[in-house]
Amino acid sequence: MLKIILPDEYNFCFGVERALELAREHMNNGDSFDTLGEIIHNPHVVKEFEEKGIKVINSPEESTKRKILIRSHGVPPETIEKIKSLGKEIIDATCPFVKHAHDSARKLVEEGYFLLIIGKKYHPEVIGIQGHAHGKGCVVINGEEVEQLNLRGKKVGIVSQTTMLLWNVQDVITAVLKQNPKEVRYINTRCSTTERRQNATRELAKKVDVMIIVGGKHSSNTNRLYEIAKEHAPAAYLIESYEELKPEWFEKARIVGITGGASTPPQDVLKVKEIIEKI
Amino acid sequence: MLKIILPDEYNFCFGVERALELAREHMNNGDSFDTLGEIIHNPHVVKEFEEKGIKVINSPEESTKRKILIRSHGVPPETIEKIKSLGKEIIDATCPFVKHAHDSARKLVEEGYFLLIIGKKYHPEVIGIQGHAHGKGCVVINGEEVEQLNLRGKKVGIVSQTTMLLWNVQDVITAVLKQNPKEVRYINTRCSTTERRQNATRELAKKVDVMIIVGGKHSSNTNRLYEIAKEHAPAAYLIESYEELKPEWFEKARIVGITGGASTPPQDVLKVKEIIEKI
Repeated sequence: MLKIILPDEYNFCFGVERALELAREHMNNGDSFDTLGEIIHNPHVVKEFEEKGIKVINSPEESTKRKILIRSHGVPPETIEKIKSLGKEIIDATCPFVKHAHDSARKLVEEGYFLLIIGKKYHPEVIGIQGHAHGKGCVVINGEEVEQLNLRGKKVGIVSQTTMLLWNVQDVITAVLKQNPKEVRYINTRCSTTERRQNATRELAKKVDVMIIVGGKHSSNTNRLYEIAKEHAPAAYLIESYEELKPEWFEKARIVGITGGASTPPQDVLKVKEIIEKI
Repeated sequence: MLKIILPDEYNFCFGVERALELAREHMNNGDSFDTLGEIIHNPHVVKEFEEKGIKVINSPEESTKRKILIRSHGVPPETIEKIKSLGKEIIDATCPFVKHAHDSARKLVEEGYFLLIIGKKYHPEVIGIQGHAHGKGCVVINGEEVEQLNLRGKKVGIVSQTTMLLWNVQDVITAVLKQNPKEVRYINTRCSTTERRQNATRELAKKVDVMIIVGGKHSSNTNRLYEIAKEHAPAAYLIESYEELKPEWFEKARIVGITGGASTPPQDVLKVKEIIEKI
């Protein structure tokens, strides 16, 4: 008998939940708007909105609607200015954790710190953080990348993309210290929901034979969960939908763990559970 | 043939050199003073001063002189007040690097940070730092000690005793990050002379068969050098004087490295070299 375990929490994260609620509220009010980028990294949800006429646009100019929704990832201030200059209104669904990263990064730059942003280069959230930090900020993902910089004698300010692992932060700061900076000031901008989800995934992965992560393959937070699962479970797979499940993954398994990313609808996780039960 | 290598730098450190110069200057001016604690952790130098009537006192009240010299380690503000209240003058030989630690610790406390001082509990320098930080500051030497604290959600400010190893700082900060603090602000108060000396000792230790560290056994910085030597050389010994040298240490050695602590007179190091050459 295959035993399947789900963590206590596999809902949308707070920021995504809030963005979706805001979008649905405006939709129900009959508002005319597009979303700047996919509202969440989930093809099913994106499709649901598209069917109701809400398009995913890549730049403010593409929109023919009266309003533009900024998703939970946030945008640089120039994008906000651009939308305003086009005479359009903004529905701001930027996650408050991301806003904290914006404010912290800007504050560090304004106080004279050399800014490091721990995150993925070109990730929309990172681009937003950099924008709010007056375009400053060097993006690094680990200590190795810090070695390319010269931080000796500098006041180094650090924030991270909200979904970064504790490990990334520790590795970057350890490398920064090696360079003998004058000061290191790290403002914690990791999101607590993400951290709880990462911890729950780690604990679950340790108990199971196979770990299934359900979520968008382009989603940063989902990929972090997949990394954790690979490290702690004998086998781990990242899928976007139950259709990708392969019976051979479960041949020798007695216990299977399933969880979803911050933007994975809980019903997708439950659907995967249902299908595995039938295998 | 035994080969003996000395590092480029084995002089007194800047702060000790400065304290000794200040003391000698006042001595040559015929000033009457005592030193609060040993001016440097070196029995030979202490004896030299004692022979000229300059006594080592343990508290300001013990002095019968007109002036009291504060050595490079520094003292808490209460000690300065005490000396003044006794109507005595101060010869302040506090190392500027230690003063930077005082100022940084005070600033962090005044800006609302929960202060950690990386250092040895009850070390005179640490007592001085704590005093200048309004009596605040939790003293920790490594990450394990950080685990005893609850730093979750706190703004954590960190300074270190000037002679701490980079490793101590990295280990403490890694452990602090694990607790999910709101912010971590580390002001680098490690002394650059100490760091250079530590790096030079590490490089030298890697090249030799036996490493000899010459310095006071109670000296914090000398003990750090000894730790580094033990880690990187096949054998390492800490001695206060050439009289402690044992011929059997060098029986199988082809290359010997010698260095001294921040308060080791260079002639002591050269004397050790001379004796080893004769072995």
